[in-house]
Amino acid sequence: MSKQKYAIGVDFGTESGRTVLVEVASGTEVATSVYLYKHGVIDEVLPLEGEQVRLEPEWALQDPEDYIRTFQCTVPGVLEQSGIDPEDVIGVGIDFTACTMLPVKEDGTPLCNIPEYRRNPHAWVKLWKHHAAQPEADKINATAREMRQAWLDRYGGKISSEWFFAKTLQILDEAPEIYQAADRLIEGADWVVWQLTGEEKRNSCTAGYKAMWSKREGFPSDDYFAALDPQLEHVIDEKMSRTIYSIGEKAGELTPQAAEWTGLKSGTAVAIANVDAHVSVPAATVTEPGRMVMIMGTSICHMVLGEQEQTVVGMCGVVEDGIIPGMFGFEAGQSGVGDIFAWFVDNGVPESYYEEAKARGFDMHQLLEEKAALQKPGEHGLLALDWWNGNRSVLVDVDLSGLLIGATLATKPEEIYRALIEATAYGTRVIIEAFEENGVSVKELVACGGLPEKNKMLMQIYADITGRKIKISASEQAPALGSAMFGAVAAGSAAGGYDTIFEAAQHMARLKDETYIPIHEHQKIYNQLFTEYVHLYDYFGRGDNDVMKRLRRIRDKVRS
Amino acid sequence: MSKQKYAIGVDFGTESGRTVLVEVASGTEVATSVYLYKHGVIDEVLPLEGEQVRLEPEWALQDPEDYIRTFQCTVPGVLEQSGIDPEDVIGVGIDFTACTMLPVKEDGTPLCNIPEYRRNPHAWVKLWKHHAAQPEADKINATAREMRQAWLDRYGGKISSEWFFAKTLQILDEAPEIYQAADRLIEGADWVVWQLTGEEKRNSCTAGYKAMWSKREGFPSDDYFAALDPQLEHVIDEKMSRTIYSIGEKAGELTPQAAEWTGLKSGTAVAIANVDAHVSVPAATVTEPGRMVMIMGTSICHMVLGEQEQTVVGMCGVVEDGIIPGMFGFEAGQSGVGDIFAWFVDNGVPESYYEEAKARGFDMHQLLEEKAALQKPGEHGLLALDWWNGNRSVLVDVDLSGLLIGATLATKPEEIYRALIEATAYGTRVIIEAFEENGVSVKELVACGGLPEKNKMLMQIYADITGRKIKISASEQAPALGSAMFGAVAAGSAAGGYDTIFEAAQHMARLKDETYIPIHEHQKIYNQLFTEYVHLYDYFGRGDNDVMKRLRRIRDKVRS
Repeated sequence: MSKQKYAIGVDFGTESGRTVLVEVASGTEVATSVYLYKHGVIDEVLPLEGEQVRLEPEWALQDPEDYIRTFQCTVPGVLEQSGIDPEDVIGVGIDFTACTMLPVKEDGTPLCNIPEYRRNPHAWVKLWKHHAAQPEADKINATAREMRQAWLDRYGGKISSEWFFAKTLQILDEAPEIYQAADRLIEGADWVVWQLTGEEKRNSCTAGYKAMWSKREGFPSDDYFAALDPQLEHVIDEKMSRTIYSIGEKAGELTPQAAEWTGLKSGTAVAIANVDAHVSVPAATVTEPGRMVMIMGTSICHMVLGEQEQTVVGMCGVVEDGIIPGMFGFEAGQSGVGDIFAWFVDNGVPESYYEEAKARGFDMHQLLEEKAALQKPGEHGLLALDWWNGNRSVLVDVDLSGLLIGATLATKPEEIYRALIEATAYGTRVIIEAFEENGVSVKELVACGGLPEKNKMLMQIYADITGRKIKISASEQAPALGSAMFGAVAAGSAAGGYDTIFEAAQHMARLKDETYIPIHEHQKIYNQLFTEYVHLYDYFGRGDNDVMKRLRRIRDKVRS
Repeated sequence: MSKQKYAIGVDFGTESGRTVLVEVASGTEVATSVYLYKHGVIDEVLPLEGEQVRLEPEWALQDPEDYIRTFQCTVPGVLEQSGIDPEDVIGVGIDFTACTMLPVKEDGTPLCNIPEYRRNPHAWVKLWKHHAAQPEADKINATAREMRQAWLDRYGGKISSEWFFAKTLQILDEAPEIYQAADRLIEGADWVVWQLTGEEKRNSCTAGYKAMWSKREGFPSDDYFAALDPQLEHVIDEKMSRTIYSIGEKAGELTPQAAEWTGLKSGTAVAIANVDAHVSVPAATVTEPGRMVMIMGTSICHMVLGEQEQTVVGMCGVVEDGIIPGMFGFEAGQSGVGDIFAWFVDNGVPESYYEEAKARGFDMHQLLEEKAALQKPGEHGLLALDWWNGNRSVLVDVDLSGLLIGATLATKPEEIYRALIEATAYGTRVIIEAFEENGVSVKELVACGGLPEKNKMLMQIYADITGRKIKISASEQAPALGSAMFGAVAAGSAAGGYDTIFEAAQHMARLKDETYIPIHEHQKIYNQLFTEYVHLYDYFGRGDNDVMKRLRRIRDKVRS
């Protein structure tokens, strides 16, 4: 018998990078290592020596050196722990948050690493949750509507301030000198693969979901970009590339320098970059239509596959080859989920609860779950709109904000906690219904990410509210596993890997035995509450009462 | 010169009774004593030995023995502290929460003091904030509308579940044996005066504001009561009285037993009972139209005088002789104010804030005020509807509930705290505008109660939002002072007191020097936010979207 072969997946998250070493034949996760980024999310001051450059509200940056340190600090560790011979590691895949983008020089050097630009916030990596490019997104949308750009339909009629060209246009608007100095504007995902392989190869997933590219039509026209700003006319040819590689392809091989960072063999196959959410889909066993994958963490990303392109208002995008080669990948999202629960725990729970949690050795989420699980659906009399971080799908509106209704003097923290969880589940149901109404089938849900592991009550609430069975990915680190699967595909069967992601999924991905099944009695109550949720959703989200936007305008004016 | 004369005022509150000894000529408050009721608010289980009788949600009871103990535990103390000769105390006045009512026997014995009835919650005192009689209030309102009862206009078109006949009808509906056993149904205020004087004399203030009585038309007709329930037809003649005494009159004189409780001379003049809020009006120097008094504590009561009767939708009532003899007293209210801030402090503030408060020797309200005061109007981006305890004026609807809109992941506890304060101020402005639109002038505000003493930021916000100057009563115990003033009037000038409340107010009541003046820059922002508040107020409060009521119905159904 041939020797066991291994693949490595590296998942670049918001606060940390996570590496997993996976046995290719069985999908067994042999070793894991996590690097907590030195500079994390940079949202107040730039990490400079001896001077203070403060950031505006809504900014969120990262330091690209944290990505290199992730390789250096995790890959040698998983090799060491597992005792695996680097010879037997046949492929590496990476996935990233998106759109997380940065300006670099021709040779890949980030502008923020060059002393001349280092004090300019626009020289740094703009993280996915950088929300300061809303005026630019508004302009992109308005111009696209005026010019009747057909590609807008692929994004549910609206693109987000988080995406590539909103961030690009913000650089041009606010720091034209950085825009000029940038030879290349690139996704973090592709930049990292470039660092590993020495080759700048851009992936179809971020190009399709975040940069308005499609396999059949390419990017929007130069005319369109010129209408946004004359200086942007040739942005694709000058600072990007029209050659886009499908996920599932091989990007290249590890350079000697990258081999030194990682302890892997130079020449090891490296996969085309992928996105954390999308790479989790095959890791959650889904390579066919009908089962939606929910990546549940600080936010939720919803992904489902289809044989045909469909237009779904308010979805984040549909991209051919975007998730699984040869299929249309549909994506939607909720911009605040676990983040909202964390906000509540940090801001809304009294001292006595902390004392109880401490005495019982619980963390606050556990204590609140225990108390909230005693409530029957509808018993707390509360309803919330889950917009603490805006609404991604189906309204695509970062200016929306959170709402809680129904509080009385008897309302307890655990009741608000449960209402917030329920609100995010209603938000998921709105997304599922939008897909189904537009011909994209969602029969069953498969969950992965941090939340399903920790919170059984939450999963049951999601099953009750969506009316669908939920299964859970067996891997606690689906993105990293998915990246490793793509690493095995990059290596190919000749090297002991696989030739397609379908084969890799059959061997390397698994679900847990447990299934959450909707409870009929709960559904009856939640259906009533969902009607109320949708009524408020439409009232505050679709222009009947734009009070949330006006409050924000007043706030911004007062602050300025 | 004649010797100094003194009057005593006793204020029966929600949690305690407070007695003040006042020098009649100058209004100087010589001594004060507070008795914290042994049983406080009874809202979970009856205070019985050896058995558990649990109360339903929304119930709130008191023990009448706590009222007698108030006399016993406070009056001897103020005499002792001050060294005053009881001979020089010329009069006693009392004020009470309302409607706070109880069923008693012919001789005044409360049914809850009789072993046979003691285990029945309906035998106890129903406190003003007993909110379990909403179905009865609904019936009273619906029947009044069907029978075109003119008196309904005096109460803004709707009576509250807190009032006398809602509570009476609840006793009849749920405990007919208690209704039968009750020879008398009486306000706590009048029952206490009965205990002091041996005479059952009912006051015009509670009769007018809480029992639909008016000086010119008396009570609603027997036909109306019969339509509510045939057994209620003769409730006035059987269990109440058609003889109502104006506030400002003398009720009688202290009995020997009451003299023994108090250490006062038997034969001392006792004033007709009054209500805590209403008795504060002359204590805050207001005996003429145009200046509104706000009693600011757990809730707010708004009072203003007029020369003529006017109909104001959603006010609590207009009563001739209700506040000041010879004038029409208009009352409105907000059912949750300080209560909402306390709810927030108890339920919504994280551990780290408690640690900071402790380290700095602050209470939580002080800490939150300090942090909230750093915010400019509009800066937090939040808006709330102040309905945590329902809405008293102008919607008169206990089924409404709290709403908070505008929260983001960056929202801090002190921002919510400030938004809650602002919401209660917007609620006050709605009430002021309702009065003014209906011909009742409100040029200036005079505040008394616990809040104005403690929270300067709150007072400035109220001035900014209402656009009116606010002055503060000099007394920290306006109700007790007002009661003492009425005690001095009961004694009359011949005994060293006064013949009218106008004279008493001139000599005994004062304002502080400080005035809160609206800040123009703040008003500009708050006017915009008030427009938003009113929009939400109307949308959720006037039937456009009855989600709050539906949530409550779902809650009640699930709980039952």
